[in-house]
Amino acid sequence: MSQLAIPANFNGAAPVIDPANVAMLLIDHQSGLFQTVQDMPFTTLRRLASTLATIATLSKIPVITTASVPQGPNGPLIPEIHQNAPHARYIARKGEINAWDNPDFVQAVKDTGKKQLIIAGTITSVCMAFPSIAAVAAGYQVFAVIDASGTYSKMAQEITLARMIQAGVVPIDVAAVASELQKTWNRDDAAQWAQAYTGIFPNYQLLIESYAKAQEVVRNQEVLDSQRK
Amino acid sequence: MSQLAIPANFNGAAPVIDPANVAMLLIDHQSGLFQTVQDMPFTTLRRLASTLATIATLSKIPVITTASVPQGPNGPLIPEIHQNAPHARYIARKGEINAWDNPDFVQAVKDTGKKQLIIAGTITSVCMAFPSIAAVAAGYQVFAVIDASGTYSKMAQEITLARMIQAGVVPIDVAAVASELQKTWNRDDAAQWAQAYTGIFPNYQLLIESYAKAQEVVRNQEVLDSQRK
Amino acid sequence: MSQLAIPANFNGAAPVIDPANVAMLLIDHQSGLFQTVQDMPFTTLRRLASTLATIATLSKIPVITTASVPQGPNGPLIPEIHQNAPHARYIARKGEINAWDNPDFVQAVKDTGKKQLIIAGTITSVCMAFPSIAAVAAGYQVFAVIDASGTYSKMAQEITLARMIQAGVVPIDVAAVASELQKTWNRDDAAQWAQAYTGIFPNYQLLIESYAKAQEVVRNQEVLDSQRK
Amino acid sequence: MSQLAIPANFNGAAPVIDPANVAMLLIDHQSGLFQTVQDMPFTTLRRLASTLATIATLSKIPVITTASVPQGPNGPLIPEIHQNAPHARYIARKGEINAWDNPDFVQAVKDTGKKQLIIAGTITSVCMAFPSIAAVAAGYQVFAVIDASGTYSKMAQEITLARMIQAGVVPIDVAAVASELQKTWNRDDAAQWAQAYTGIFPNYQLLIESYAKAQEVVRNQEVLDSQRK
Amino acid sequence: MSQLAIPANFNGAAPVIDPANVAMLLIDHQSGLFQTVQDMPFTTLRRLASTLATIATLSKIPVITTASVPQGPNGPLIPEIHQNAPHARYIARKGEINAWDNPDFVQAVKDTGKKQLIIAGTITSVCMAFPSIAAVAAGYQVFAVIDASGTYSKMAQEITLARMIQAGVVPIDVAAVASELQKTWNRDDAAQWAQAYTGIFPNYQLLIESYAKAQEVVRNQEVLDSQRK
Amino acid sequence: MSQLAIPANFNGAAPVIDPANVAMLLIDHQSGLFQTVQDMPFTTLRRLASTLATIATLSKIPVITTASVPQGPNGPLIPEIHQNAPHARYIARKGEINAWDNPDFVQAVKDTGKKQLIIAGTITSVCMAFPSIAAVAAGYQVFAVIDASGTYSKMAQEITLARMIQAGVVPIDVAAVASELQKTWNRDDAAQWAQAYTGIFPNYQLLIESYAKAQEVVRNQEVLDSQRK
Amino acid sequence: MSQLAIPANFNGAAPVIDPANVAMLLIDHQSGLFQTVQDMPFTTLRRLASTLATIATLSKIPVITTASVPQGPNGPLIPEIHQNAPHARYIARKGEINAWDNPDFVQAVKDTGKKQLIIAGTITSVCMAFPSIAAVAAGYQVFAVIDASGTYSKMAQEITLARMIQAGVVPIDVAAVASELQKTWNRDDAAQWAQAYTGIFPNYQLLIESYAKAQEVVRNQEVLDSQRK
Amino acid sequence: MSQLAIPANFNGAAPVIDPANVAMLLIDHQSGLFQTVQDMPFTTLRRLASTLATIATLSKIPVITTASVPQGPNGPLIPEIHQNAPHARYIARKGEINAWDNPDFVQAVKDTGKKQLIIAGTITSVCMAFPSIAAVAAGYQVFAVIDASGTYSKMAQEITLARMIQAGVVPIDVAAVASELQKTWNRDDAAQWAQAYTGIFPNYQLLIESYAKAQEVVRNQEVLDSQRK
Repeated sequence: MSQLAIPANFNGAAPVIDPANVAMLLIDHQSGLFQTVQDMPFTTLRRLASTLATIATLSKIPVITTASVPQGPNGPLIPEIHQNAPHARYIARKGEINAWDNPDFVQAVKDTGKKQLIIAGTITSVCMAFPSIAAVAAGYQVFAVIDASGTYSKMAQEITLARMIQAGVVPIDVAAVASELQKTWNRDDAAQWAQAYTGIFPNYQLLIESYAKAQEVVRNQEVLDSQRK
Repeated sequence: MSQLAIPANFNGAAPVIDPANVAMLLIDHQSGLFQTVQDMPFTTLRRLASTLATIATLSKIPVITTASVPQGPNGPLIPEIHQNAPHARYIARKGEINAWDNPDFVQAVKDTGKKQLIIAGTITSVCMAFPSIAAVAAGYQVFAVIDASGTYSKMAQEITLARMIQAGVVPIDVAAVASELQKTWNRDDAAQWAQAYTGIFPNYQLLIESYAKAQEVVRNQEVLDSQRK
Repeated sequence: MSQLAIPANFNGAAPVIDPANVAMLLIDHQSGLFQTVQDMPFTTLRRLASTLATIATLSKIPVITTASVPQGPNGPLIPEIHQNAPHARYIARKGEINAWDNPDFVQAVKDTGKKQLIIAGTITSVCMAFPSIAAVAAGYQVFAVIDASGTYSKMAQEITLARMIQAGVVPIDVAAVASELQKTWNRDDAAQWAQAYTGIFPNYQLLIESYAKAQEVVRNQEVLDSQRK
Repeated sequence: MSQLAIPANFNGAAPVIDPANVAMLLIDHQSGLFQTVQDMPFTTLRRLASTLATIATLSKIPVITTASVPQGPNGPLIPEIHQNAPHARYIARKGEINAWDNPDFVQAVKDTGKKQLIIAGTITSVCMAFPSIAAVAAGYQVFAVIDASGTYSKMAQEITLARMIQAGVVPIDVAAVASELQKTWNRDDAAQWAQAYTGIFPNYQLLIESYAKAQEVVRNQEVLDSQRK
Repeated sequence: MSQLAIPANFNGAAPVIDPANVAMLLIDHQSGLFQTVQDMPFTTLRRLASTLATIATLSKIPVITTASVPQGPNGPLIPEIHQNAPHARYIARKGEINAWDNPDFVQAVKDTGKKQLIIAGTITSVCMAFPSIAAVAAGYQVFAVIDASGTYSKMAQEITLARMIQAGVVPIDVAAVASELQKTWNRDDAAQWAQAYTGIFPNYQLLIESYAKAQEVVRNQEVLDSQRK
Repeated sequence: MSQLAIPANFNGAAPVIDPANVAMLLIDHQSGLFQTVQDMPFTTLRRLASTLATIATLSKIPVITTASVPQGPNGPLIPEIHQNAPHARYIARKGEINAWDNPDFVQAVKDTGKKQLIIAGTITSVCMAFPSIAAVAAGYQVFAVIDASGTYSKMAQEITLARMIQAGVVPIDVAAVASELQKTWNRDDAAQWAQAYTGIFPNYQLLIESYAKAQEVVRNQEVLDSQRK
Repeated sequence: MSQLAIPANFNGAAPVIDPANVAMLLIDHQSGLFQTVQDMPFTTLRRLASTLATIATLSKIPVITTASVPQGPNGPLIPEIHQNAPHARYIARKGEINAWDNPDFVQAVKDTGKKQLIIAGTITSVCMAFPSIAAVAAGYQVFAVIDASGTYSKMAQEITLARMIQAGVVPIDVAAVASELQKTWNRDDAAQWAQAYTGIFPNYQLLIESYAKAQEVVRNQEVLDSQRK
Repeated sequence: MSQLAIPANFNGAAPVIDPANVAMLLIDHQSGLFQTVQDMPFTTLRRLASTLATIATLSKIPVITTASVPQGPNGPLIPEIHQNAPHARYIARKGEINAWDNPDFVQAVKDTGKKQLIIAGTITSVCMAFPSIAAVAAGYQVFAVIDASGTYSKMAQEITLARMIQAGVVPIDVAAVASELQKTWNRDDAAQWAQAYTGIFPNYQLLIESYAKAQEVVRNQEVLDSQRK
């Protein structure tokens, strides 16, 4: 039977993230490359990719980062990645486009000792897709975070999504990554997770603000302005 | 062979709804979460999710509802769900994000004695997708109602749709759910079903109004205004 | 000086609605014509036009309605108009496309004794625009509610908006009509007005629901599900 | 006072079409140029421009056509124009881009003896706009049919609409042209006008078909299929 | 092995249309239902569905049509279907939503003696999808013409496309149907096929018009207007 | 002559901002109301409105804020406004929808001693438009910042833009406000202004990051990764 | 009477370009700023702005260029401007945002001796709008080429278009600029103009290619491939 | 087991391009057909298809081209294909729509001796899809470049993408093709590859221009204009 089943390498187990057995790879999220992103506003990508780093920190999973020739027009890695995941390990490459072609990178992945990989990268069809396919071939269970990756057209994003499911990679969005790692609101750091979700669906920030004010009005017995004399 | 065939757990039978053997799960359709929905106008989602409840009532299938911490910013369940499906059973959770992680919820599903599940939830990639994948793993035939579920971006919806078909979940829209349950117009409650479809494609309401008036003009021998002197 | 100043017939006064001196004309909002509307979902139009009727009732201003050959393919007037404005006066025409060409209609407008007219109609460039231009020529101050009127393309809507401002008609949206008539939240019927706004921006309904629940949690000292044992 | 008032040359009269005093100019609707149209599907443009010709015939107003070097890449005039308006007069130019720069064309306009002009042309900002501005300067009341004209971008269309109102040209859509010429449904050729509107908002064709069938069912006492045994 | 392979019932043969062994099913293309179509302009749907009928006639394949309660608000079948495929056989149903639930319909399909079915229907997720899934279960090779079918939202169309490929149905567009049936331009009726393609991508009509004129200019040695004195 | 000239109250002077004679009014930018905004992502609105406050601080112009019943569902003022403009003066109202109907608010404006007003508010057609029209009537030169105001539909925004220019209000975007106040890059606080523009067009942040890195590579004589051995 | 009439400074003359009395100003079309453009693809802007330079050369009108701090993140002027208009005069500024604030720039404009100005600039609401308003105040007739200017949002573009017409600036698109300068196809350099239009509506290039081939087939008596044995 | 596995003919190997064992087929990229393309701007398609030819040249892989009756309305092959890939071999057909039905074409493919094929064609569902399916059936590993192919609607593109993955064809975008062939930036022709990417995501050209200028400023110690006296 093919090594590239659907979804690959799960052998019939439910294709979900196991927080205890997963590492995160954040690849080539660079200021120059972000200018080429057209499948979503780059501000959305920047927010989502940065939130992924935050989530990794909250759930204490390993993070590996890398960049494609950051000394050239591709530009530097956006600083939020390492700010939000201070424990992340940066691997410099030697020009290889597919990070998986770099032995140091593959070794760093092995060093984590994890069986599952959450991968995001810019541009999607290259920096995210190539390592994802290679990791599947190497026996990993791979989750490709399509919306924390950016590419040059909506069409390119759709093509890559199709290629990923065909190759046995599990497509996933940032919200699902967060929730599969968090699992429950019944935990001490719930407020930090709530804050993280404002990076995924920003309306949540408005909800929190309105909720707090509504309760404050009751607690403080505030009079509505429209009832003032 | 994998437990996660395509579509899962049908074993070669046609992947269609069996009205006699199906239950409906409506998960986390809450006022706060609806503010985060961006893959369709939330009014469309509210209309479609509410109509799903109506359809369940018309076809006399069990409904289970639940909410994610409705005392917090996620807000209360929208009232139409239980108004339209008064027989629905509400299961409170203890903070678990995946409703299937709550034993009471799983037991309630088992109590229905059904083999098929129609699942809708907000947000799609979490509240609908997690129980769907878990239910497939538990041996159920699962129909995921993508357009009675809402999420934070069109892209997130597309990613989740791909993940669902990869996992053996059958994707379905509200119209198909209604018609697979109704099966024929040759039944006594046909008018109630026609009314239900106005909740799915609202132009149908205009059709009904225009149709009634056109026939009334003949029956009452009304003169056209433009032929009045 | 031209009779068609910008805005027309205000003679330098601020071009705003005077609640004490205004009538509302709701023209040709018919089930058949609604099928031709493409500048917004017809459900939006139906909601906004119906809300306009509600607002007229709340602010106690006269309403005149009419329809274009409702016995033909144009179809019947949508029932919400008269349901929401039971005091509205319906004027049957004799085939005239421009309602202002019908003497009964013009007389009904005169009978209100008002100097300002709020006009909405479907389709926008005809049923709303023709009476608006005619009313300006007759000396009225006219407010054209573009988004409670519907037409066959976004382009047609834009063309008509341009024609209206060129002709001295004041373009206005439903929210502005409501707020210029309401003027303040410091009034006894504030809750009814809040309800009316849910017909203009439906997210307001979610806000009200979430607000009520958030305060209820404090008042009832509810425990969050995620804090239950 | 400026010759270029808003709207120009009406001198305070209501800026509406006078069926007895208007001619129509259809300029450069050519197969090659239609390939460059991007502000609407060219099929929409073709349908609307052709319907304009039909309307002119129904209302018995003069039509003048012309083309820009139809022997070159611009291609031939679309045949529907003259098919629908057999009485139209074609004026060949000598390469002038602005039809008004061609003396034969200006003379043909004068020959109609009309004071008002309805103008459509492709591309909008050139073939329609230049003669419109020139005709205003020559003292005509001009109605520019923006959506029976086509251009290379939505932005170009919006720019031209703004330029037109600034120049005193009255912007108008095809529906308004039709209705200002028809004026009433209380006329013998009402059915032909109804047919013409299907060229403006094609849903009207569906309305007519459904209306006829609904009445036929009553008249013929047809049994619904769903009530057959 | 599952009967519902991908693509189903081809047993490893290339999943392409065999012109000698295929029939076409055109289901529920009705005037009322067309008003509910929102995944494309209904004019596009009407053009594409009608062209499918033309193509069936050109390639001499059997056509079966049916309608869902055409005496009610769903309205009558659009006339072009039978006009373009005069050899089509109409099967009346008794209210069954899934045409395949009607024994007369299934028998009519069997009567064709074909192994492959090209299916289009409105609305897509019901009228097209249900018979497609049923036909696959009955052993047919099924081609679902998604863009000659219409439904109530883009999302509903995408969900149905995913459900189809999961169920082993081959998704196809009208152009591919035409070209797999035509196979070569080296045939006597090439001009009729060229005309048929103008119903699929209407720009082709402009190409034909411009091409003919360009060659005529050479043949007739016409002088360009811009070179006239 | 009308008090409502175009643009109003400039008396022939160029309609531009005079940094020495202008105040800024930021009205009703509240968490609840932001949920109703649909003419742009609310995140864009939040960023632009907050940047407006920053700009006011950089250019040392007075700012007045107010909110509409912040104790109710409209929610609290977003905190960034006062964070970015610590010198802003908050005026509580008594339920008046039009801030200009509140005497304290009008007095606060007068207290600034400025002749020009930059106004932004949510929702656009009410909270921004009503005070703008009132201020024009009171003799002020008014600049309405349409894209630092938010409303419930794109159509509502377009209608309001048209109403504003008709009323003599000068429409302006945030970038133009910034640049008319800044006037030149040849000033000591240029870097702070550059940072402010990243709040208007966020790609500017990427430009700054890439620019700094590109120059650093030269200064530090860094080797490109792709040239490493 | 106001100096800012509509359109300004034409004194009743038709608001059209006079090729003998016009200069072109191309302002701040820089590589960095182009990354911020969101109201059209920057490739479209680059093509249109470059074509404007070509047109100026073909029509032999003066061109003045300038850039905003090209040594910083705004980046260098795109090279096509001076390549296509080798006669253009570049004016360096000293940090002034409004080019008209730089005395050298104003002097360069005066030096042309022209009364009309065609102005394009990035970003639209600043680099194009400020000099346009200033030039109107200085007595020039100004044509603002909105689609050869780029800005950070569609909304910003619409706001600026409205501000321009309010200020008496004539809005215009690139096609209209070209055609008002060219005036006729009956000139020796017609082929060069045809080529220029491929920069405005690129489909024109396809038309030229297809036209040439179609005529070549006749001239060379080529056999169609589909008629080969 | 089926010959049409997912992805087909890889037998468990990672579904990636092997630069040493691949040929490129560029099919029917013709000026007339390009006028029918609606799933992206044809300029994008033209740029991407031309870049594919460049990439083939840079990576020294064989290219085969063909056209569908270029003597008719389909028009000539766009010249860039052979300009960018001078080593490409053109195969004339005899009217066959599926290039794979032409024996000369199949032989030319065989002559390359490659096992993998990169295929692009216009229109997508026919000219690209038919040879792709046929090549899979003939045992090739096929990569379908969806975004270097064009078709008549976005829906048609989505349908074809689904059909391709169902048939075992690997969907890919132009960026992924380039990067899988290039593999590393650590090569002598890196600058040529960088240039090629400007044909895929044109913002990359702006990045290169800005990067060069930023470094030049440091190297030449240029003073910023804004710091000049």
